[in-house]
Amino acid sequence: MWLAILGIATNASTNANASRFRDLCPALANKTYFNYGGQGPLPTPSLEAITASWRTIQELGPFTTDVWPFIEQETSRLRRSLASWCGVGPHRIALTENVTSGCVLPLWGLPWEEGDELLISDCEHPGVVAACQELARRHNLTLATLPVLELCQFTAQRDLEGAVLEQLQTCLKPRTRLLVLSHLLWNTGSVMPIAAVAQHLQAHPQQPWLLVDAAQSMGSLPVAEAAQAADIYAFTGHKWCCGPEGLGGVALSERLLDHGQPTLIGWRSLEQESSAGSSWHRDGRRFEVATSCVPLFSGLRQSLELLSAEGSETERLERIRQGSQQLWQNLQALPGCRTLLSEPPPAGLVSFRLEGVETAQAVEALGQAGLWIRRLDSPDCLRACTHLCTLPTEIEALSAAVSELLP
Amino acid sequence: MWLAILGIATNASTNANASRFRDLCPALANKTYFNYGGQGPLPTPSLEAITASWRTIQELGPFTTDVWPFIEQETSRLRRSLASWCGVGPHRIALTENVTSGCVLPLWGLPWEEGDELLISDCEHPGVVAACQELARRHNLTLATLPVLELCQFTAQRDLEGAVLEQLQTCLKPRTRLLVLSHLLWNTGSVMPIAAVAQHLQAHPQQPWLLVDAAQSMGSLPVAEAAQAADIYAFTGHKWCCGPEGLGGVALSERLLDHGQPTLIGWRSLEQESSAGSSWHRDGRRFEVATSCVPLFSGLRQSLELLSAEGSETERLERIRQGSQQLWQNLQALPGCRTLLSEPPPAGLVSFRLEGVETAQAVEALGQAGLWIRRLDSPDCLRACTHLCTLPTEIEALSAAVSELLP
Repeated sequence: MWLAILGIATNASTNANASRFRDLCPALANKTYFNYGGQGPLPTPSLEAITASWRTIQELGPFTTDVWPFIEQETSRLRRSLASWCGVGPHRIALTENVTSGCVLPLWGLPWEEGDELLISDCEHPGVVAACQELARRHNLTLATLPVLELCQFTAQRDLEGAVLEQLQTCLKPRTRLLVLSHLLWNTGSVMPIAAVAQHLQAHPQQPWLLVDAAQSMGSLPVAEAAQAADIYAFTGHKWCCGPEGLGGVALSERLLDHGQPTLIGWRSLEQESSAGSSWHRDGRRFEVATSCVPLFSGLRQSLELLSAEGSETERLERIRQGSQQLWQNLQALPGCRTLLSEPPPAGLVSFRLEGVETAQAVEALGQAGLWIRRLDSPDCLRACTHLCTLPTEIEALSAAVSELLP
Repeated sequence: MWLAILGIATNASTNANASRFRDLCPALANKTYFNYGGQGPLPTPSLEAITASWRTIQELGPFTTDVWPFIEQETSRLRRSLASWCGVGPHRIALTENVTSGCVLPLWGLPWEEGDELLISDCEHPGVVAACQELARRHNLTLATLPVLELCQFTAQRDLEGAVLEQLQTCLKPRTRLLVLSHLLWNTGSVMPIAAVAQHLQAHPQQPWLLVDAAQSMGSLPVAEAAQAADIYAFTGHKWCCGPEGLGGVALSERLLDHGQPTLIGWRSLEQESSAGSSWHRDGRRFEVATSCVPLFSGLRQSLELLSAEGSETERLERIRQGSQQLWQNLQALPGCRTLLSEPPPAGLVSFRLEGVETAQAVEALGQAGLWIRRLDSPDCLRACTHLCTLPTEIEALSAAVSELLP
């Protein structure tokens, strides 16, 4: 019973740091929320930025010479913000509807040859894997798996880089042309050594393309080193960045911009939008398609500014990790609870199993108490995320509620 | 000078019909607007529906068991509305980000064979043409042109069906596997006989696929007959439907659902979203990708309801045509002004040229007087659109301003 009270009482912050951003998020006012890796809360100033953007577009346009400078301003301000987070030039950024589009649009236009091999880690999201399978079917490519799941579960984070590189060396074949690897694995919560992996791939005779799913890393980790090293570094604004759903982006390497053709082609892909004979844009815009919702650009930029105001990316990660470490330690102490990682998580994802408890039932029972976590299929486990706005009291409430679920 | 006054005074409606919908659109309050074919105004109730949807998602979610029924409700209500407008079952509708995605996503997954020919009308949007060119490059297909531009300019609408079918018969080759034809041509404003064209294609040994760009028809014409007949009938919500930018859809034929593979694949394409080995959805959802902005769904549905409240689609077209006919007649009467069509337009697009006046300069001069039309490149002309909310006084103001531009 006292658990429910704790759950409700989380607004009375015991953590001054967490409360600044937190108080701007209506989603956090009536629940105890741990699904930032599914979708982040939208702060009220971001919703206000979205509606203000719509009002401006209606006042000046919606389709007039007067409105174009505003559209261009909102687009380029967001592109510059994302470029700055990724540590790349704005010309290397394409804005996309979601992380899947950011992965697949550039992937589909690379120069594939029959017999090329796609190497995919065993911790990738089913959507990206299914897209690779279909790509392989159409071009007669082969698929191979880079096993990292077991490594993550049984290797200390400090030894993970070496272990992943060794595994990669084993799996690379003469025909390997692509590696798909997430930066922050959505299931175990481990950080992959993307820059080292990229360097390793450069030494391979084929110099395979490196596609990085950054769905969980963007907004939770410092990403610049990885984004600079990958060919395709695809992210979304609606998870850890706490922006609106339906907007993401991708950072692209110079060599991808040299060799990649667009697939979904519309007026935004073309250098001269009124001519079908036009060249593609030389920069990331070649992977942009047609009309998107510009007010969402204003909203995501506002969310990025709110996060930046909370501290440097290193400071923000530190706050995220304070929460995930507290949760991990609490769970470790529960008999019958097994965390997927053998040491405190490097970021905000905490995955675990409960002996004798069915995961779907656990999610349902916790949800009925206003505590929101999710289950994952592969491996079958529960996942709770802590963000910089997570309160210590929330973590204690979740830990206690999980404890009560155990037989 | 009196023109500017007229332009400003258009809120004092002289047309009771026009004012109901019109008064809900802030974009129409401070300008004289004729760019509905570029982007429609967003009514205030639609913006309110969008923000209310966001508030509900934040209150219930954003990622909880409590929010899924709301997401599912908003998605299926919009899908059913669009299906009803298209006269097809909801299973034949895919929701997309824009009309280009609706055209290209299903196109890219059809079973192409080297040497197949794509037949494309000479009045298609450059984005779709560029996508076909890239498709042809990748699969070694050939491209051919169906000339309809001249037909439209020199044939009465009542004779157009016969003329287009005759032209089609001339252009169809044994290897023709696709025809791309807009329903309402964005340049001349002519209506193409889509149902008759579809019937004609059925009789061809190859039964070519029919891709219809419905960017200008959806929301301005009755579309069911054409949407039922096409294989790919792709539209957007942000032009004549007056919904938010960044949301469209496509009606797909049963045979396309049988044979088309998705390209951009994400969790929404998969029958079991957590499994990469899952089948695609059997229905239109196989062409949906990943996270979209659900609040936009709520906004477009509100806009469709507001339009429906203005009368049946036939009644709405009648009001649109009253405006376009008035404008066409005024322009016809101006010496030095030549309309592209030789008779009043069948819908709301009025394209014309001014002798001795450069089109870009004309757009700029009119814009400075608060009158918004656009120019087109191919053919080089001006285009003004009338919607059901266009006032007779607005048309008189535009006509007089155009008259003053002439030497």
